[in-house]
Amino acid sequence: MNGHIEVIVEKLIEAFGDSSRVLTEVQDLYSYSFDASFGIYKPEIICQPIATDEVVELIKLAAQYKIPVVARGTGTSLSGGPLPVKGGIVVDFSLWDTKLEIHPDDLIAVVSPGVITSKINDKAIEFGLMYPPDPSSAHVSTIGGNLAENAGGPRGLKYGVTKDYVLGLEVVTAEGKVIRTGGRTMKNVTGYDLTKLIVGSEGTLCIITEATLRLVPRPLATKTAMVLFDEIVDSGHAISKVLRSGIMPAKMEIMDRHSIIAVEEYASLGLPIDVEAILLIELDGHHQAINEEMIRVEEACMSVNARSVIVAKDDREAEQLWQARRLVSPAIVKIKPTKISEDATVPRSKIPEMFQRLKEIREKYNVHLVVFGHAGDGNLHPNIIADQRDEEEMHRVEQAVEEIFEAAVSLGGTLSGEHGIGLMKSPFMEMELGKDGLHMMKLIKDAWDPQNILNPGKIFPEPGQRFVLRND
Amino acid sequence: MNGHIEVIVEKLIEAFGDSSRVLTEVQDLYSYSFDASFGIYKPEIICQPIATDEVVELIKLAAQYKIPVVARGTGTSLSGGPLPVKGGIVVDFSLWDTKLEIHPDDLIAVVSPGVITSKINDKAIEFGLMYPPDPSSAHVSTIGGNLAENAGGPRGLKYGVTKDYVLGLEVVTAEGKVIRTGGRTMKNVTGYDLTKLIVGSEGTLCIITEATLRLVPRPLATKTAMVLFDEIVDSGHAISKVLRSGIMPAKMEIMDRHSIIAVEEYASLGLPIDVEAILLIELDGHHQAINEEMIRVEEACMSVNARSVIVAKDDREAEQLWQARRLVSPAIVKIKPTKISEDATVPRSKIPEMFQRLKEIREKYNVHLVVFGHAGDGNLHPNIIADQRDEEEMHRVEQAVEEIFEAAVSLGGTLSGEHGIGLMKSPFMEMELGKDGLHMMKLIKDAWDPQNILNPGKIFPEPGQRFVLRND
Repeated sequence: MNGHIEVIVEKLIEAFGDSSRVLTEVQDLYSYSFDASFGIYKPEIICQPIATDEVVELIKLAAQYKIPVVARGTGTSLSGGPLPVKGGIVVDFSLWDTKLEIHPDDLIAVVSPGVITSKINDKAIEFGLMYPPDPSSAHVSTIGGNLAENAGGPRGLKYGVTKDYVLGLEVVTAEGKVIRTGGRTMKNVTGYDLTKLIVGSEGTLCIITEATLRLVPRPLATKTAMVLFDEIVDSGHAISKVLRSGIMPAKMEIMDRHSIIAVEEYASLGLPIDVEAILLIELDGHHQAINEEMIRVEEACMSVNARSVIVAKDDREAEQLWQARRLVSPAIVKIKPTKISEDATVPRSKIPEMFQRLKEIREKYNVHLVVFGHAGDGNLHPNIIADQRDEEEMHRVEQAVEEIFEAAVSLGGTLSGEHGIGLMKSPFMEMELGKDGLHMMKLIKDAWDPQNILNPGKIFPEPGQRFVLRND
Repeated sequence: MNGHIEVIVEKLIEAFGDSSRVLTEVQDLYSYSFDASFGIYKPEIICQPIATDEVVELIKLAAQYKIPVVARGTGTSLSGGPLPVKGGIVVDFSLWDTKLEIHPDDLIAVVSPGVITSKINDKAIEFGLMYPPDPSSAHVSTIGGNLAENAGGPRGLKYGVTKDYVLGLEVVTAEGKVIRTGGRTMKNVTGYDLTKLIVGSEGTLCIITEATLRLVPRPLATKTAMVLFDEIVDSGHAISKVLRSGIMPAKMEIMDRHSIIAVEEYASLGLPIDVEAILLIELDGHHQAINEEMIRVEEACMSVNARSVIVAKDDREAEQLWQARRLVSPAIVKIKPTKISEDATVPRSKIPEMFQRLKEIREKYNVHLVVFGHAGDGNLHPNIIADQRDEEEMHRVEQAVEEIFEAAVSLGGTLSGEHGIGLMKSPFMEMELGKDGLHMMKLIKDAWDPQNILNPGKIFPEPGQRFVLRND
């Protein structure tokens, strides 16, 4: 393969008409060899397309020379999505942020793949609209990456995830054909739903070059409460109680005691460190409605033994309450430098049981396990804090993470709620899907990408592949 | 193939352990030879499974003898979904209505394929929850059929369609393997989204034997308004105006003048027959919120030249207003016996233009074209009323329908918003999807069902296939 690299580079430069967007210097290759997960894998070429026909040309070259093509946004993946594990071409979409159209009468946005996700919502707001998906990385990650991984976020509870807001795509297939899936309409049952098949396929089926996104009217007001619990299991009951009372909060985020302590040590916000859990609840909608709903939220929480409910009086106070949740990630990496962020997800009713299992795992493997996340939809974020230079500790961490996956699946949940499978979780796919379920996915991969040039080595486990958390 | 029928019947009876659920009498074959669309196609065998292992056995037999398998609920399809166009086995799921579980803490329902759709919502209401999809057929159609066709309905505007409420499926593949897709969690990004690929695939990829559906808290109140317009184009502006003011109604249904006249002649409700359009708007949510929102809806409509807005004072008055919309279908079939119900869907901003195109088509082909439907999401129902015994008229109708499809696609819309492609619309697939887009769908079909035993002759056009509306 390496013999062809020079030829491919030359042809890419010709196709792009711009040598500055085809990179091969060693420092470039290193810059694109990692993401926010684990492992270092050097690509052979990086290119930075800013037009669909450039993507067509590069895929045709890749197909001709059977060289891997790995799409990448800003590299915030927590599952190894953009790692070029088999070398090849990394396609950096971050320069292609040129299209961000809002069509208010159709309630849609049309975007190029390199647009930073939060900018879509910023622009929608100007028209009284909202793009709901809000992954924590929204201010740095690209919509292309969000689409590839089907990113979630706190608002997933009420509003769903990225996939729920994609009406149509323009993609380039492994053969270098441009197709359009879906369209601009809310309803579309013309043939198979390729749009929703492609969203979340992690760059293994085709390359996304444009997306048509659904927007919704922006809610008029929001209201936030912080609820304190002496027993973490009661926070689970509070979630059920609120949802069953006819109220659908925009967000219901949990922080366990370990997260609370970490934040308090980091920033001295005055959080009570003797509670077992904090729930942060945000209601959105019509101001009269949410005022009245918040009273019922308080009643619901107090009826299941909350210690107290603090309701923000205004947006400034709400901001302060949310700060606690926002500081969890920066706070915990102060404890130890390596953060392993999982997103195992369970049915809502199993949240109390999952907390119990996580507690047992923490003790069994003596790991620094902190739990926070999107409790309202069962999408917890068990994070283990470690030091990857400590081999013995990392071995315990690997075992603990494996057991977290097993716990989630055995409770009827899933390996990944919003981070994707990528490289890291593929060894566990069969555990969740079974041999036949995984086979049906593989049939699609083989049919669409028979040469296996699109992000090879992802989602599907390789023979003998094991779970490892190492950078070497 | 026919030589094997006796053997297959014998083995089916053995597998089912019950000869009463394997039918081959000529009157049975005739009963299953049509649906609510056009065409009569006799199957060779009908079977009525009530368990997954029965479906496994019948698919294995079908695979062994290469005989078509066509799933069917109650036969309400408007696109020919359950028609056995290549003969074979019709699998009638209507007896398998035994499972309808609500799990309120997980906000889910688990159902067997033969459950009547409206019963899911009825049961959810007992728990303060709602199953939003509400196709007009909900009281007679099965959830299995709704899943196969990705059924919509008026509430699609705010709540989305069937697909948006499916978390997981149990299906039997063309090889007779049982797989589970998705699960019970709101978020799941473990591999490809087979769930949403299967929903809407019209029985061509696998057979659905169980579904896990997402429920939402039931809104506390609803409020209805009837808005009258002298110019139909203003009704389109009203839709945009309302949606851009931060209000998302549960329903926004339109009736054009031809629908209004038909209803008025049928039932004398006192509707004004000199208006060009009526919009029926339903708000749902918190009662204080919708009271205030309704005032803004009125203002929005009056600002774009509505003649008047009638707001229902209570649920009884709301019922009366909705009666007009409900009577459209029964009213128009009084005019002529054959109703061709289309569901061409356009981006919202193109609704006024689509109305203009439909008017031109009505005049050009001199057909009795009536327009009503889910205007809020662009999913109109142009219905042509005709008499299928009149060959010359039906030929004009066919041409008019073709032009309706062309108009929708040329306005950036789609052939089908909620009825599916089935047999009727497959000749138009390439027009919307292009050759390459259709090819990518076909690759999936071929990979999953290489013998083409699952509902053959649907979705994908056969060489030389033309659009016909005939029963002979």
